[in-house]
Amino acid sequence: MDSSPQTELYFIRHGIAANRGTYAQDRERPLTEKGRLRTRAIGDRLVQLGCRVELILTSPLVRAHQTTQILLEADLAPTSATLEVLAPGGELQHWLSWLTDWQMAHPVSRLALVGHEPDLSHWAQLLVHGQGSHNWRLKKTGVIGVEVPPAKDAIGHSTLFWLAPPQLLL
Amino acid sequence: MDSSPQTELYFIRHGIAANRGTYAQDRERPLTEKGRLRTRAIGDRLVQLGCRVELILTSPLVRAHQTTQILLEADLAPTSATLEVLAPGGELQHWLSWLTDWQMAHPVSRLALVGHEPDLSHWAQLLVHGQGSHNWRLKKTGVIGVEVPPAKDAIGHSTLFWLAPPQLLL
Repeated sequence: MDSSPQTELYFIRHGIAANRGTYAQDRERPLTEKGRLRTRAIGDRLVQLGCRVELILTSPLVRAHQTTQILLEADLAPTSATLEVLAPGGELQHWLSWLTDWQMAHPVSRLALVGHEPDLSHWAQLLVHGQGSHNWRLKKTGVIGVEVPPAKDAIGHSTLFWLAPPQLLL
Repeated sequence: MDSSPQTELYFIRHGIAANRGTYAQDRERPLTEKGRLRTRAIGDRLVQLGCRVELILTSPLVRAHQTTQILLEADLAPTSATLEVLAPGGELQHWLSWLTDWQMAHPVSRLALVGHEPDLSHWAQLLVHGQGSHNWRLKKTGVIGVEVPPAKDAIGHSTLFWLAPPQLLL
């Protein structure tokens, strides 16, 4: 039997947030009421589908952090951690060293990553194809599911099993 | 305003069929009872999601043809057409000449393609990335959604907007 580490990743884009330009700092834009409600509904549906995760990793930006808090309230995970590398422009390669350590302690697990576009779909494409493009569409509160082998082999050798707009999860 | 042709493709893998080896001809394997019921449920859900299509194109193999008949009964489309190129091993390039003609008459439209793995996910990846891999997982009655520009430019310039296992559609 194969006992190599295997991790299911759920890339979740933050919910609908206040428009650009309405806050002095882009990082401070919060979710709208609609964004909060939809995020909760998506969290409930993911739990219903049996997709609870061990940990939610979140971008430090307010709209991602709020998304994560709502997903925790929906019981998608018992806890979360904030990672600066999930802020816009963060590099997958830096996160893979975190994943290496995680997989040592958790050979088989599920994680959710809450962040931003185009980074999330770019990371997912690097894992699945070894290169990125702008040809995957991840809407706000949309989810990409990728199954990842040991972190050192992950790039280009992961498997895409979901790409879902919120419409499919409501 | 852009008036270029744009086509939404729903690649739908046939439903659960009788095991390999139970029929002398692989082409003749029919759907199981579970396969029929699940296909109907997926058809109903696609209609509910507003994904009716103009036409279902189907592989001539029995399990694909039966899948198409059930999707027609669910009112996913008004009609279907059988294309030999959708049988296992068929080449996308050959189908794109069909699509060119279709787009002349139907600049904006939706089509469903019912067929087999690994061909469907390979075609979808050629459209989105210009090359294929085994890294997309399309389960039986699963659906891949791809938005396609004019057929002559389609390879490598299409957009992935769905990859859904049946679990997400039931």
